[in-house]
Amino acid sequence: MIATKGYAAQSATEPLAPYSFERRDLRPHDVQIEILYCGVCHSDLHTARNEWHGTAYPCVPGHEIVGRVTKVGSHVSKFKEGDLAGVGCLVDSCQECNNCKQGLEQYCEQVATQTYNSPDRNDGTITKGGYSNRILAHENFVLHISDKLPLEGVAPLLCAGITTYSPMRYWKVSKGHKVAVLGLGGLGHMAVKLAASFGAEVTMLSTSASKEADAKRLGAHKFALTKDPEQLKGLTNYFDFIIDTVSADHDYNMYLNLLNTNGVMICVGAPPSPAQIPAFNLIFQRRSVVGSLIGGLPETQEMLDYCAEHGITSDVEVIAMKDINEAYDRMLKGDVRYRFVIDMATL
Amino acid sequence: MIATKGYAAQSATEPLAPYSFERRDLRPHDVQIEILYCGVCHSDLHTARNEWHGTAYPCVPGHEIVGRVTKVGSHVSKFKEGDLAGVGCLVDSCQECNNCKQGLEQYCEQVATQTYNSPDRNDGTITKGGYSNRILAHENFVLHISDKLPLEGVAPLLCAGITTYSPMRYWKVSKGHKVAVLGLGGLGHMAVKLAASFGAEVTMLSTSASKEADAKRLGAHKFALTKDPEQLKGLTNYFDFIIDTVSADHDYNMYLNLLNTNGVMICVGAPPSPAQIPAFNLIFQRRSVVGSLIGGLPETQEMLDYCAEHGITSDVEVIAMKDINEAYDRMLKGDVRYRFVIDMATL
Repeated sequence: MIATKGYAAQSATEPLAPYSFERRDLRPHDVQIEILYCGVCHSDLHTARNEWHGTAYPCVPGHEIVGRVTKVGSHVSKFKEGDLAGVGCLVDSCQECNNCKQGLEQYCEQVATQTYNSPDRNDGTITKGGYSNRILAHENFVLHISDKLPLEGVAPLLCAGITTYSPMRYWKVSKGHKVAVLGLGGLGHMAVKLAASFGAEVTMLSTSASKEADAKRLGAHKFALTKDPEQLKGLTNYFDFIIDTVSADHDYNMYLNLLNTNGVMICVGAPPSPAQIPAFNLIFQRRSVVGSLIGGLPETQEMLDYCAEHGITSDVEVIAMKDINEAYDRMLKGDVRYRFVIDMATL
Repeated sequence: MIATKGYAAQSATEPLAPYSFERRDLRPHDVQIEILYCGVCHSDLHTARNEWHGTAYPCVPGHEIVGRVTKVGSHVSKFKEGDLAGVGCLVDSCQECNNCKQGLEQYCEQVATQTYNSPDRNDGTITKGGYSNRILAHENFVLHISDKLPLEGVAPLLCAGITTYSPMRYWKVSKGHKVAVLGLGGLGHMAVKLAASFGAEVTMLSTSASKEADAKRLGAHKFALTKDPEQLKGLTNYFDFIIDTVSADHDYNMYLNLLNTNGVMICVGAPPSPAQIPAFNLIFQRRSVVGSLIGGLPETQEMLDYCAEHGITSDVEVIAMKDINEAYDRMLKGDVRYRFVIDMATL
């Protein structure tokens, strides 16, 4: 077994605290990674605090992991010691079903193993994530990381990046499209950067006028204040796509009206209450409301390569491991531009 | 002006009764049609009874019209006296906007003129529909009707047919797909016939076991009783498409769970209450909920030609004009297999 240090929640109500545990011995296809940076995703907080229920404690969150390979199993062919490597939201899947065969491991018919709080499909133990100094994963679930970009800015691409990249590729967002981004947080700021890089005209929709300058710095061409009915009215039937990254309850219908004929509202945020959608509002302009979950492994690698080529990273605030609880509090207040990333050297 | 006989509702609460009125004189691009058959759509009833609000009385419903050309305007090139001809839900549109230019007149940016209860874009008068002995329309809004099929079975294709044909073409329903049809009424029975003709495996989802034999006769390969949780459970993640033709409130979410990865729920029925859709249920399998409105003129012609080639018509019960109120009552009880069609010779 491999001695590992990390931070864990011991219950839904306790702050995260130092925690030592053991990871499995290297299997033949495993890659062992010394973690350098781990992004802090809102899912980490939801899970640590059992807000989605089903959290197994102690819980070590973290699925935006970048590090360096320190050891590889005897059958590993894709990585060697010293390589930069990443691990995202998934560490395993059946690799045999229709979806896995198409590289859609996130939709594995046998249910993929998530990077934390998920039963390992081999031994049933509960996976522990990237708030730790090392991790192991099957080489098929490890990503190659370019040395061209600052690693702390790359870590959030493993979840926030792929979650917005994947649906924009699936629904073919490109030059000539008008794209609205709803919500300027971890996902939203990546959606702005990526949509702009695809050549789309990007409009930031926000409840707060103070976001305008930042949205434009990130690549948005336009900005609209959603609290102003006049601004919204002027955007009726305007957009080809809305990337909805908002996880708080909101009025889907108000935004659906901004979609043009054949427009697609892509939901990557999951509010607690169901969306209320009158069928007429879809029917009258052949509109779609769709969802999308992270991305498969081949597409995640494609996204990382794309970002390396185009110089795209996440805007991050690097924190020490010990400051994670304060970071959670600030995240809840929206006080982060736009992703906390833990420097694992501080562990 | 052209003297016309028909049936109209004089108010939301009165039964339809005989009504004489005048239609405009023939314009240079108009085609004048002696109506032979007119289908009875649920929209007719909603409008006659002002259930969607905004009905102008007297109201002459009817937008599934088949007849014979009796006269053409001086500039008409597409039709001549004696031709069979059809009129569907639209009689005019701007013909200049992006959507009209693409043959998507139903989504006209200037709002298309509907066949009844709609302000004529030229003179502002309120259009009157097919529960009448004759109608006029711009030749671009008149369809060619084959003489190969019984005309009474063709009439409902102008609304029920195109409403189900269009989204299945747009989302490319074809061989190898598993398609569920929800609701076996006017739209549902056309969806079954058309989906089967496209080579898809068709499953009828119904609350009533008595529909099984009929569904299979219409072309469904499978049948599932939606009241039986075991039958539904066995269909989890099964379908590529659900064609949802139900206009009564229902649980969208229960059906969404039957969609496989990338599955699309196509809504052509519009229940009074909004659909309640948890974002997670879209996100976890990259599912879509979409709407679609009838079809444009080029596609309606394509659909009519396709049906003529493949021998597809609506299953109808032909009624006399005077029996329209009884037909509405029976329609409300679901007592029609599957479309009433008025024989206009009985007027």
